[in-house]
Amino acid sequence: MNLQRFSTSKVIQDRQKLVILGTGWGGYSVLKNIDKKKYDVIVVSPRNHFLFTPLLASTTVGTLEFRSIIQPVRESRFRDATHFHLSHATNLDLDNKILHCHSVLNPELKYTINYDKLVIAVGALSNTFGVPGVEEHAFFLKEVLDARKIRNRILTNFELAVGPKIEESESKRLLHTVIVGGGPTGVEFGAELYDFVQQDVAKLYKEQQKAVTVTLVESDRILASFDSRLRSHAENKLRARERFTLIQSSVTEVFKDSVKLKDGTILPCGLVVWSTGLAPRWFTQNLKVAKNTRGQILTDSYLQVLEDKSGSVYALGDCADIADVPLPCTAQVAERQGRYLTDVLNGKKDSKIPFEFKNMGMLAYIGSYEALTDTPDVKLQGFTSWLLWRSAYLTRLGSWRLRMQVPMDWLKTLMFGRDISRFD
Amino acid sequence: MNLQRFSTSKVIQDRQKLVILGTGWGGYSVLKNIDKKKYDVIVVSPRNHFLFTPLLASTTVGTLEFRSIIQPVRESRFRDATHFHLSHATNLDLDNKILHCHSVLNPELKYTINYDKLVIAVGALSNTFGVPGVEEHAFFLKEVLDARKIRNRILTNFELAVGPKIEESESKRLLHTVIVGGGPTGVEFGAELYDFVQQDVAKLYKEQQKAVTVTLVESDRILASFDSRLRSHAENKLRARERFTLIQSSVTEVFKDSVKLKDGTILPCGLVVWSTGLAPRWFTQNLKVAKNTRGQILTDSYLQVLEDKSGSVYALGDCADIADVPLPCTAQVAERQGRYLTDVLNGKKDSKIPFEFKNMGMLAYIGSYEALTDTPDVKLQGFTSWLLWRSAYLTRLGSWRLRMQVPMDWLKTLMFGRDISRFD
Ligand SMILES: Cc1cc2nc3c(=O)[nH]c(=O)nc-3n(C[C@H](O)[C@H](O)[C@H](O)COP(=O)(O)OP(=O)(O)OC[C@H]3O[C@@H](n4cnc5c(N)ncnc54)[C@H](O)[C@@H]3O)c2cc1C
Ligand SMILES: Cc1cc2nc3c(=O)[nH]c(=O)nc-3n(C[C@H](O)[C@H](O)[C@H](O)COP(=O)(O)OP(=O)(O)OC[C@H]3O[C@@H](n4cnc5c(N)ncnc54)[C@H](O)[C@@H]3O)c2cc1C
Repeated sequence: MNLQRFSTSKVIQDRQKLVILGTGWGGYSVLKNIDKKKYDVIVVSPRNHFLFTPLLASTTVGTLEFRSIIQPVRESRFRDATHFHLSHATNLDLDNKILHCHSVLNPELKYTINYDKLVIAVGALSNTFGVPGVEEHAFFLKEVLDARKIRNRILTNFELAVGPKIEESESKRLLHTVIVGGGPTGVEFGAELYDFVQQDVAKLYKEQQKAVTVTLVESDRILASFDSRLRSHAENKLRARERFTLIQSSVTEVFKDSVKLKDGTILPCGLVVWSTGLAPRWFTQNLKVAKNTRGQILTDSYLQVLEDKSGSVYALGDCADIADVPLPCTAQVAERQGRYLTDVLNGKKDSKIPFEFKNMGMLAYIGSYEALTDTPDVKLQGFTSWLLWRSAYLTRLGSWRLRMQVPMDWLKTLMFGRDISRFD
Repeated sequence: MNLQRFSTSKVIQDRQKLVILGTGWGGYSVLKNIDKKKYDVIVVSPRNHFLFTPLLASTTVGTLEFRSIIQPVRESRFRDATHFHLSHATNLDLDNKILHCHSVLNPELKYTINYDKLVIAVGALSNTFGVPGVEEHAFFLKEVLDARKIRNRILTNFELAVGPKIEESESKRLLHTVIVGGGPTGVEFGAELYDFVQQDVAKLYKEQQKAVTVTLVESDRILASFDSRLRSHAENKLRARERFTLIQSSVTEVFKDSVKLKDGTILPCGLVVWSTGLAPRWFTQNLKVAKNTRGQILTDSYLQVLEDKSGSVYALGDCADIADVPLPCTAQVAERQGRYLTDVLNGKKDSKIPFEFKNMGMLAYIGSYEALTDTPDVKLQGFTSWLLWRSAYLTRLGSWRLRMQVPMDWLKTLMFGRDISRFD
């Protein structure tokens, strides 16, 4: 360890400099819980807010509004405003404890910051598996901006489909959505779209409702991580839906107005939502440390990056994995890891106790007031499970601002329907 | 009148075809009140929602959210979805009663529709007075998208201003906003910005608050249409504000990062909001009918376009003016005209009674819980007037969805501050 610099910083402010990369589930959890009297905290992230991802799919059709599920990370508790950097971390010099950053807003601004301790929680990207056309034509569902683009595209497609002089085949294409990937995100997006079509399109675009179709393309089984009985239930429910098709295949190319399946079939469509797992971000790829086959940074069970000899660099959430105990890439894991780490850093927990993950279970919304609850003790489907789904998320929303607005949005959607205003 | 076609349409559906251009105060007022059993209504507008303009300034800083003040025009009452066209009206053939349209979403789609009756309510544009650089670099405040752009720019400027390695002069430039035009819109935007700086920037960007400056450039007096005592009160209040400057001059050029005044002074700034009156839209300019010097379509006091011999074309709101009784360009006028016209068209009002405008007064918010109320009977300033301002708008919001959400937004702003998440 660079004792010289360490002692200097001690003299100046008697606080170690803790740098957090990312403001997602992992990073935000560290930021919220870290003892700001003990650490001089600096956050580096390309977004200045936390996003409650489990409800992101609901914003694509307006069940919830975008700003109802995000929380600014700047707070009056920050000593001064320069403690948050709207930047990407681009590179890391472990030996000299120097982080390279690149400003999001000013492309010319590249700079470095040093740290005493570093928490890497940069998350992951959607995996395109190198399929041609995905980057250009498909929509991801990771950030609020992604959700807004999807919502805008859906509303645009509806407006185009009812426009004058439209040919029937073109109208059908516009109203056909292809979802690639049958994980929770793909299924929940499909569920929200279904509700939108049943509840709002039925009233507002009347005849067009019959022309709306959805295809879910999954190479394996949908909701693979769920209990098999729940998964079968979901599959049956989905298959029973009119104008919904579940295809076991994979997409080999995405075009402007269609996708191509493995067997060569071309499916004309107006929207492709791509959600097929994770790939490492550029920063993670760039990092010269031990990684697993999926490109995740390997840590020990204290969340310390294996190859960092200084013992001051931690990695958690989607960008990392514990070498001996592989963990699922979920909000739950990232959030718990953040809390574990702050307990250790704050001195509240013995640093010899390793991180242990107790799975609290999974929830997934499948549409028309039905959800799946898959916990070690309880396996539940249907309306009760949906109530559980809603209340679970409500209590876990990180702030009162969100806890007030989310039920308000739900109520408005129920009473007045979703807002189909298009202004993008 | 083209009796032939009229009688045909009678036979087919026993309803006259009423085409409404625009979904602003005028057009939406006609749409809401027209008897849909009597008329086959078709709406042509480049936006599929109504916008409550008096609260638009509040959305630029997040006091209110964008979707809290817009209302979709599609409703289940529409017989089918093709009755709304997301298009610009581009031209009009009065003799043959044919309207030319251009789709917003499909640039290749140009088409015509015929009408029995036509209501022109296309509003107006912001007037740039041909000042160079305005279109490219200044921000208008007319539509929700404009407000979103302003909000994004403000949040971007703050993030840049606290970024690493920033020079003090650059930081000061970024935090300097120039408002051009001292009408109600300019003043209210300034008021919202002021509240944001006092209430939120103070907490979240701490030191930067001192660097925030606002300059309001107005060639005449501010709030010229208001009672002189109220106007003076507002002027004094504004002038007393720290870091606020009121300049009596005009802007002769707008650059990427500054504006130039008449006397050659260059004011470096990070945002220019342009609000200096109205100019006719392209459709209005293109129309070959009698207009006043400001380019507004002239009508008689029954709102019938003077030069239309068929007696079936009406014009109202910002795009029109009554020949003998010039009216202010306000939401109030447009809304009343819409109601007057539907009363006549629905047969509820004798078509011999001309439109008459009784001014109910004006309101303007000037910041820190103070507003001006200027009615024929009451002239009020201060906090009470602010309460009046809020409740007046609340009751006039056109739907329960908005009437629920707007107070919720106000409450959230009060309790938690404004959302400074930047994701654009
Ligand atoms: C639509 C959707 C629904 C989901 N639903 C659920 C659910 O119901 N339950 C559940 O448990 N999990 C769910 N997940 C998964 C969960 O969101 C992730 O596992 C979780 O977000 C991982 O947390 P993280 O902190 O590792 O990454 P993230 O939350 O993705 O945060 C990464 C952060 O790093 C920032 N960043 C990116 N690049 C850089 C860089 N170069 N430098 C600095 N910062 C950077 C990002 O801006 C972001 O702030 C869902 C995910 C999605 C997309
Ligand atoms: C920020 C702001 C604050 C304001 N505050 C107040 C206030 O407090 N009180 C008050 O009385 N007034 C206020 N006004 C003024 C008021 O909004 C206008 O006078 C009013 O909107 C005029 O109504 P309108 O129907 O003529 O036009 P608009 O409301 O502007 O509506 C015009 C409509 O026509 C559509 N359109 C445009 N081009 C075409 C085309 N080619 N073909 C078809 N449709 C087209 C537009 O999309 C829009 O839907 C404010 C205005 C602004 C911008």
